[in-house]
Amino acid sequence: MRILITGGTGFIGKRIARHLLEQGSLEFEGEGPREIGRIILFDAFPGEGLPQDPRLELRIGDIDDTMTVGELARDVDVIWHLAAVVSSAAEADFDLGMDVNLYGLLNLLEALRAQDRCPRLVYASGFAVFGGELPETVQEHTALTPTSSYGTQKAIGELLVADYSRRGFVDGRTLRLPTIAVRPGKPNKAASTFVSSIIREPLNDERAVCPVTPDTAVFISSPRRALEAMLHAMALSAETLGQQRTIALPGLTVTIAQMVEALERVAGTATRELIDWVPDAEIQRIVESWPVRAATPRAEALGFQADDDIMSIVQAHIEDEGITLKGDKA
Amino acid sequence: MRILITGGTGFIGKRIARHLLEQGSLEFEGEGPREIGRIILFDAFPGEGLPQDPRLELRIGDIDDTMTVGELARDVDVIWHLAAVVSSAAEADFDLGMDVNLYGLLNLLEALRAQDRCPRLVYASGFAVFGGELPETVQEHTALTPTSSYGTQKAIGELLVADYSRRGFVDGRTLRLPTIAVRPGKPNKAASTFVSSIIREPLNDERAVCPVTPDTAVFISSPRRALEAMLHAMALSAETLGQQRTIALPGLTVTIAQMVEALERVAGTATRELIDWVPDAEIQRIVESWPVRAATPRAEALGFQADDDIMSIVQAHIEDEGITLKGDKA
Repeated sequence: MRILITGGTGFIGKRIARHLLEQGSLEFEGEGPREIGRIILFDAFPGEGLPQDPRLELRIGDIDDTMTVGELARDVDVIWHLAAVVSSAAEADFDLGMDVNLYGLLNLLEALRAQDRCPRLVYASGFAVFGGELPETVQEHTALTPTSSYGTQKAIGELLVADYSRRGFVDGRTLRLPTIAVRPGKPNKAASTFVSSIIREPLNDERAVCPVTPDTAVFISSPRRALEAMLHAMALSAETLGQQRTIALPGLTVTIAQMVEALERVAGTATRELIDWVPDAEIQRIVESWPVRAATPRAEALGFQADDDIMSIVQAHIEDEGITLKGDKA
Repeated sequence: MRILITGGTGFIGKRIARHLLEQGSLEFEGEGPREIGRIILFDAFPGEGLPQDPRLELRIGDIDDTMTVGELARDVDVIWHLAAVVSSAAEADFDLGMDVNLYGLLNLLEALRAQDRCPRLVYASGFAVFGGELPETVQEHTALTPTSSYGTQKAIGELLVADYSRRGFVDGRTLRLPTIAVRPGKPNKAASTFVSSIIREPLNDERAVCPVTPDTAVFISSPRRALEAMLHAMALSAETLGQQRTIALPGLTVTIAQMVEALERVAGTATRELIDWVPDAEIQRIVESWPVRAATPRAEALGFQADDDIMSIVQAHIEDEGITLKGDKA
């Protein structure tokens, strides 16, 4: 089996690759396991900490280059399409966002269609497809009203994946992801990047900036749940999914204050002091435009799950990253 | 004032042009009237019955050609973007639909953005953005769930016009139109074309084919109401519209049986005999996937109106097309 992961050097791409290499095979609902022959990680950036394995291949290039993507798509059986220009970056540079988030996806869909193999595709969208005046809880049938170019491009992506799937060009499934926290690594250009920073940096004895007020609520999912969702979405059969190809994932609603409280309980009072509260009106505006509660009955019926609570998210991050707490050392 | 109408040789494009030429000026809400200097009708086909006027210019070309559209967009103040590959045609030829309905719109938006004048744009969408399992009455906040490539491309268009407007590249307003009936002229490749044919052809003493059952309901608007909406949408100020750039238009819900009954009452029993009932499962499927009732409080508050009843639609068609009924001759 030949696997392509775009945005493959990002942390979710690497986790999928590591998991698949460990498993050695991938199993679809109702079918037997199939051996992993090759995993291609495609990205604009080489990234760090890639698994060392002869089955793994790294390719660097631009997703909006038709030739590159045509070559990439050759003979692939399954694709996780994670390449994206994130929210603040797509807002700051409209053309870059369109090139990667819209034209990049179109390139990939056309290249896969040209292969005439109807490969299975998991596409990463997010709750930024919602914005503006929203109901208290967004429903699966709530209209998409993005108030950012990133959200617009993701909403368009959901529509394209659905239509290319309906026509049998690909067997697509879109995951509408909550904000992922705690992300490992460094801050990125997502407006939501602070949601991870305020936990991650203090745990590493570093300072973090929080640009929003403590009572700001966010809708989050841990990397563990996100990885599970990526694998589960790929495994589900086309019959199970039917025509509706977008799956809005369950998430956890927490305020920033609750996150900081969890940090303090897990890692001590001193960690709270490492957060600098520096209000940023634009980030506050973008984050507040996103929904903080979503009803996701379909995803739950399909077996997708939210995290239990913020404490378990913080603890999982500590485990996954092998962090030694000061208290533990003492 | 320099005006561009794409799909300009279609019947709505011609009606807008004729109206503007008669008026001699166009007036925006809160501003004085501005003289019509030039109207460019752009289309892939030359069409027939164009108004003869030195202010009118016909240009033939492909909307998905970047050079052509860049040239077209130069110095235009207002644009009605009506060019489209209709539902059945976009379903039969996926690439053609994408080229015109998606890439054509992107070409136009980019050309207008490059002008850096933030021109006013009216974009024609339709209720085909809805499909599948729908509530009895679709609301303004009901999620778009197209079940055709045409509907997908129009839903994407709505999102693009909204984001290009939010960013100040254009001052766009999308009209989500009901099925227009009675359309003058010949049948086209819209799955809904029969909705006009079953009235238009019998009134001309010609036979018409109805591919759906008499109890099939449709959601329609007369050409008069559509023209009014096109002009009103252009006149509304950006302040009046705010961030929400899609206006779902009010329409009339009627069954095919009610339409035929109106035809009979207006033009005599013999007209009913001119309809051949030839069921077409695919057309029935597409038409049934569209909503037949829509709540449109925002459009109504903005001054858009539905037709009163099907009788008045049939009578308006007879008037507009100068049709002499047999009964009148006798």
